[in-house]
Amino acid sequence: MNVDADALTETRRDLHRHPEPAWCEFYTTARIVEELRARDVDELHVGPDALEESDEPRMSLPDQATRDEWMDRAVDAVADADLVERLDGGNTGAVAVIEQGEGPTVGLRVDIDGLPIPESDEESHAPAAAGFRSENEGYMHACGHDAHATVGLGVLDAVRHSDFSGTLKVFFQPAEERVAGGGPMSRSGHLDDVDFLYAVHIGLDHPTGEIVTGMGGFLAVSGFEVEFEGSPAHAGAHPEEGDNAIQAMAAAITNMYAIPRHADGPTRVNAGVVEGGTASNIVAAEAAMECEVRGQTTELMEYMWDETGRVVDAAADMHDVSAERSLNSRAPSAESDDELAALIGDAAGSVEGVDSIVEHDELGGSEDATFLMNRVQEQGGKACYVGLGTDHPGGHHTSEFDVDEDSLTIGVETLAGAIESLSESED
Amino acid sequence: MNVDADALTETRRDLHRHPEPAWCEFYTTARIVEELRARDVDELHVGPDALEESDEPRMSLPDQATRDEWMDRAVDAVADADLVERLDGGNTGAVAVIEQGEGPTVGLRVDIDGLPIPESDEESHAPAAAGFRSENEGYMHACGHDAHATVGLGVLDAVRHSDFSGTLKVFFQPAEERVAGGGPMSRSGHLDDVDFLYAVHIGLDHPTGEIVTGMGGFLAVSGFEVEFEGSPAHAGAHPEEGDNAIQAMAAAITNMYAIPRHADGPTRVNAGVVEGGTASNIVAAEAAMECEVRGQTTELMEYMWDETGRVVDAAADMHDVSAERSLNSRAPSAESDDELAALIGDAAGSVEGVDSIVEHDELGGSEDATFLMNRVQEQGGKACYVGLGTDHPGGHHTSEFDVDEDSLTIGVETLAGAIESLSESED
Amino acid sequence: MNVDADALTETRRDLHRHPEPAWCEFYTTARIVEELRARDVDELHVGPDALEESDEPRMSLPDQATRDEWMDRAVDAVADADLVERLDGGNTGAVAVIEQGEGPTVGLRVDIDGLPIPESDEESHAPAAAGFRSENEGYMHACGHDAHATVGLGVLDAVRHSDFSGTLKVFFQPAEERVAGGGPMSRSGHLDDVDFLYAVHIGLDHPTGEIVTGMGGFLAVSGFEVEFEGSPAHAGAHPEEGDNAIQAMAAAITNMYAIPRHADGPTRVNAGVVEGGTASNIVAAEAAMECEVRGQTTELMEYMWDETGRVVDAAADMHDVSAERSLNSRAPSAESDDELAALIGDAAGSVEGVDSIVEHDELGGSEDATFLMNRVQEQGGKACYVGLGTDHPGGHHTSEFDVDEDSLTIGVETLAGAIESLSESED
Amino acid sequence: MNVDADALTETRRDLHRHPEPAWCEFYTTARIVEELRARDVDELHVGPDALEESDEPRMSLPDQATRDEWMDRAVDAVADADLVERLDGGNTGAVAVIEQGEGPTVGLRVDIDGLPIPESDEESHAPAAAGFRSENEGYMHACGHDAHATVGLGVLDAVRHSDFSGTLKVFFQPAEERVAGGGPMSRSGHLDDVDFLYAVHIGLDHPTGEIVTGMGGFLAVSGFEVEFEGSPAHAGAHPEEGDNAIQAMAAAITNMYAIPRHADGPTRVNAGVVEGGTASNIVAAEAAMECEVRGQTTELMEYMWDETGRVVDAAADMHDVSAERSLNSRAPSAESDDELAALIGDAAGSVEGVDSIVEHDELGGSEDATFLMNRVQEQGGKACYVGLGTDHPGGHHTSEFDVDEDSLTIGVETLAGAIESLSESED
Repeated sequence: MNVDADALTETRRDLHRHPEPAWCEFYTTARIVEELRARDVDELHVGPDALEESDEPRMSLPDQATRDEWMDRAVDAVADADLVERLDGGNTGAVAVIEQGEGPTVGLRVDIDGLPIPESDEESHAPAAAGFRSENEGYMHACGHDAHATVGLGVLDAVRHSDFSGTLKVFFQPAEERVAGGGPMSRSGHLDDVDFLYAVHIGLDHPTGEIVTGMGGFLAVSGFEVEFEGSPAHAGAHPEEGDNAIQAMAAAITNMYAIPRHADGPTRVNAGVVEGGTASNIVAAEAAMECEVRGQTTELMEYMWDETGRVVDAAADMHDVSAERSLNSRAPSAESDDELAALIGDAAGSVEGVDSIVEHDELGGSEDATFLMNRVQEQGGKACYVGLGTDHPGGHHTSEFDVDEDSLTIGVETLAGAIESLSESED
Repeated sequence: MNVDADALTETRRDLHRHPEPAWCEFYTTARIVEELRARDVDELHVGPDALEESDEPRMSLPDQATRDEWMDRAVDAVADADLVERLDGGNTGAVAVIEQGEGPTVGLRVDIDGLPIPESDEESHAPAAAGFRSENEGYMHACGHDAHATVGLGVLDAVRHSDFSGTLKVFFQPAEERVAGGGPMSRSGHLDDVDFLYAVHIGLDHPTGEIVTGMGGFLAVSGFEVEFEGSPAHAGAHPEEGDNAIQAMAAAITNMYAIPRHADGPTRVNAGVVEGGTASNIVAAEAAMECEVRGQTTELMEYMWDETGRVVDAAADMHDVSAERSLNSRAPSAESDDELAALIGDAAGSVEGVDSIVEHDELGGSEDATFLMNRVQEQGGKACYVGLGTDHPGGHHTSEFDVDEDSLTIGVETLAGAIESLSESED
Repeated sequence: MNVDADALTETRRDLHRHPEPAWCEFYTTARIVEELRARDVDELHVGPDALEESDEPRMSLPDQATRDEWMDRAVDAVADADLVERLDGGNTGAVAVIEQGEGPTVGLRVDIDGLPIPESDEESHAPAAAGFRSENEGYMHACGHDAHATVGLGVLDAVRHSDFSGTLKVFFQPAEERVAGGGPMSRSGHLDDVDFLYAVHIGLDHPTGEIVTGMGGFLAVSGFEVEFEGSPAHAGAHPEEGDNAIQAMAAAITNMYAIPRHADGPTRVNAGVVEGGTASNIVAAEAAMECEVRGQTTELMEYMWDETGRVVDAAADMHDVSAERSLNSRAPSAESDDELAALIGDAAGSVEGVDSIVEHDELGGSEDATFLMNRVQEQGGKACYVGLGTDHPGGHHTSEFDVDEDSLTIGVETLAGAIESLSESED
Repeated sequence: MNVDADALTETRRDLHRHPEPAWCEFYTTARIVEELRARDVDELHVGPDALEESDEPRMSLPDQATRDEWMDRAVDAVADADLVERLDGGNTGAVAVIEQGEGPTVGLRVDIDGLPIPESDEESHAPAAAGFRSENEGYMHACGHDAHATVGLGVLDAVRHSDFSGTLKVFFQPAEERVAGGGPMSRSGHLDDVDFLYAVHIGLDHPTGEIVTGMGGFLAVSGFEVEFEGSPAHAGAHPEEGDNAIQAMAAAITNMYAIPRHADGPTRVNAGVVEGGTASNIVAAEAAMECEVRGQTTELMEYMWDETGRVVDAAADMHDVSAERSLNSRAPSAESDDELAALIGDAAGSVEGVDSIVEHDELGGSEDATFLMNRVQEQGGKACYVGLGTDHPGGHHTSEFDVDEDSLTIGVETLAGAIESLSESED
């Protein structure tokens, strides 16, 4: 296979310099679209056309002021201003399609957003030493989505120049870090004719040269916040006049953790952030918490979602306050299909630089590629989540995270190889 | 004044031998009625005629089997069987009326029930030594209501033979120990023309010879029980299938104690008895608790009643179980009127054996004479709760409790003296 | 194989007539010993000799009065009085040994205790119809341990008359229903030379003719009770003087359920029984609860044991009361070895009446055979828990439970067959 | 009496323009000291000399950066730089002494700090309209301490020019709003020879022309914060590895409110501000809360202090986290002595503009003048807290609060009149 490693590195470094948070991937999307336009793909669905239209605001959508700031920054970094404007309001991301004759429709999903983590400026941190450290101070590609987007473009190129017969769709998905973009993209319609879907993640404590052919163990997840609103009162003079939002929140927290374990499998619950009240001598009228529930299966997650809802409402009633719950993020569980995993193993076997093939690993956490995987699997297709090893100096979501750029070529060749074999396997 | 101390002693001892619990004062009522019939009082309202008629069962009414047993026991002790039958179903007690010409209507309230406390059989315990220990094993007049009923008869006699001009009503109230009889008697109609009401309590850590002219500090109280009902499940195999009544009860308990203090005055809450579940490996489907709330005023008690109700309902909702609350006892708060208290002080001053007159003391606990006091006060009348000192070897509600019978005469003379002076004061 | 089905039925029915609770299997042990003496086994370890000696009282040992009653009953039912006396104090059960030349030492563990469940007296209940219903009213063999003991004797007979070369030890274990007897028997020394151990359970929703060759999924368990002791106070007069045992217990319950889920596998916690307090107007000085924790592995159960311990202690501290925790029952987790399971499958294949062989099933609950299995496995031996199907009209632990006596022969032949093949496999 | 109303107004307006928060009263103290130096008082104790020296940092002392900022601002507003520096580190405030011959030592305590409340800039707000609105944006004299300091100077002048025979000490106390300055001033030694102490508060919903001769009902208070520190963990991947600071805080909150009511009188508890955690998917390693407890008496407050301490520690233990509690503020309860109150009534009677004299009112809240009052009373002296009515458009601690400057003269004349009469009363 004929992969331009230098071009991959250059693209990845440009994206690395411009990390953007969920729903604010304005520069990133514009840059990807520019690349895709240069390639003259058969179809290109950008922003709103790549996602389900919805009357509801996107989950975890930042406010307009924040988005404006990121739009300005993107335009300053020489993104197309008209395009950027189209992407506003939770409409980042893109879907590229190439059609190469009869054959299956194969999808590849990559995600594109960065994180609100300041990037290390130590000499030991390669992006700092080599001059492609984040230009958006306080934000960073600390989970390798810059590499993912790059691999997406690389695979598209490799397949374009191969004997692959069929259709390839590359999904550049926004807002994975908030577990918010997968749902809208899964319901965009673009997945509905996909026979086989791959998704890919770099790193995950696997070294350069190692490929995990199929990952599972995605916990279904719902992230949510709850706002309690009661009535203030002077805690010394008239405690009985208050409706205590902090007391309600405390009752909710304790009892959410005490929801019964479920015999069908692991569940999780966490109240991770709390805030409330104004002064030690005032009965708190307001309190809020950010929480999440998970389950080994989507059903188990929904069990926890329903139970926490009831606990929250009852805790509010108990202290005569109101509780408003809003969903911030959601992803189902999913499993990789063995058939697709096997093809990855086969393809990786002939890729230079691959020295270890692992059949299966568990993610342990959550990821909204599962929305796309489920969509395909529900319609009789197959899906597989591939692990692409890379030597990463710091852990994911740390200031020292980086990828070994050698793994970019490995990833492109492995995925493209498996995709090509899919058109053959149909023969 | 002309009081037959021996007769008082004999009556008290007979009642002491036959202690009966709340709503089962069959022998006691029959014996009182027999005495009143012998005196040819002007009106005698017995049992159902002495209480409000109600479609609801009386609070804390024992079950029929228990009542049957006490009715049999009363008839065996030579009570009038027909009369006893009339008293069944929460209809014990009596009201006696004597009319002696123009003048105010004065009431005296005494209570008549015993307690489920076994009486001491030590020689040092006078009733045991003198042969009038309880014949109803496990039950005892451990709070002096035998003395109260005796004083009620004694005052009636003393007033009957005095120059008192007006009407005297003596209220022999049942079921005080369960704070259950005062309400029905207060709404019987017999209180509605009472201008002045005295109630009396013996002991309360005041010695023989001491009179407390007016007591206050009655906390309003509601006693209640809550039954939680959920669904059982095997705690190992299917914990999620249970609706945990014990968890609901625990949440209710913790949060009931956490109800805000009230600026208007003292409040109280207690979950005093709990029970629930069947086995350590079964999610409990049932749990129950006995609780009480109090307040310095009736309003404060009602605040706690409302708040605990909301907490209990919400705790049940929180764990998807049902909660049924039932009221076991209730009494409002009350205060003694100074005018009546002053008359007690005046009267006591000329009673032989009185060597200490205390103007005011606080009860601290609850007592349903307050229902009768409130009824009179609400209609413009006055009410006063009198403390009658007696040397009592053991504390109230202990097996060693006893009264000094010398205080019977003191009580009769003091109360009768004050009542007589009321007719004079109208002149 | 040459199995006397009538003798098995007769033995089972005699044991069924005399169900005895944990640590009170006086008649049962005596009857088994009588049978074993008649067979002239090579070694017979009875009562204290079959269990670890311990300075600590056995877990869940009933009090002396209860044991005395069961001892009297056993003697009345014609058990050997001297023997019965030796069994007192948590020393029921027996181990029988037959030695038949060179070869492996094979163990078979059966349990022998009954349950405090009243037996159905309906005609539809076979023991009632056929006249062998429980003679100990309120107690019943509702889990088939009468059949287990019978199968134990039957296998001993079958192996005795077979070509088996080696040593067979049959463990008649007491107190399984309280998960209390397995530990002491596992530490008796008699397991220490066992190369292969089978345990067997009848029913478990498998029909007559079905054999489960190896069961797993035993949750490790600890049952415990906690006694909270504080100080009483009048809830109206001096609430601050109380140290509230019920409040402490409520805090403990809520927070025990809220112990974090564990990523390594399922855990369980339950507060199944609570009791406390004396009156609604008294701050409760005493409260107690019966609880359990479980884990998929022994480590997970120990995690929950440690966490609940910390929660209980802290809840007690929080309300200034003391908490005393005592262990009622404990069993580790275990898994069946495939090699032994395979031999069961082989043996069952040639047993008349077997029409279904299931390789694996999960118990879901807990069982203290795991102590014996662990002991053997820790020393390099192998262990296997066999499921013996039987049509049972009512569920386990219900008044209508019964076994299909045809399964007795099937069980004996299958187990004896597998045991015989173990001596061959050593050749 | 000869009071310069214009000078009072001018002083008050200058102080009003320069509100400073607790322990940052640099300009305020400097300005007061300048006034006192101009008067040539007999003794002047400034800053560290006016307070107890302590190795512990003052409660609620802002950090050095904050103090530096306020010191700069004070110097900019033309305060004496050397003096300002001496006041740093929690050493603001002053005590002025005038000696006028034989007679009692009389104290007057006024407080001097402002609040972090932005001042209204509406035309309807007199300071805005008349040009003496706060120059320290975000800070405001919203509780009238500018008037208090002014009255302190005015009384000193009035007494200086009167026939008063004795010693007058005026205490300009810092940091009342954080209930932090009263303690150190009370232990400075300057109170130890005070025979009679007055403290004064303006407003409190009493109109101009009304004087409350003696205020009581000060709830003793302790304000505190608690920091919980545990260990973070990924809530999906390894919930069991976290030590959950938020769960500990929730348990503490619920159980702090559930501390038993106390029969001796009102108590209060409030968790008014909470904050904790970093993300919904992380088990929170840190959480903090700001709380307070109060009691009708110092003993009752201390009961709540002890109980909350135990609850907090136990809640931390329960969830295996640490809890650090620090005291932010503290004040005891106090009552006004009738004798001093009566003198205020007498003095007020002859003050022009006084049209209503109220004998007693309850404060309901807390105030650390009680430290000084207690100090004097404990040594056999007498103390009295005087209410000085003023028409105030907005409530205390609101952006619209203002005082009617006519009340300044009334306050000065009333207090000076009472102080003068104290020297006479000694005759």
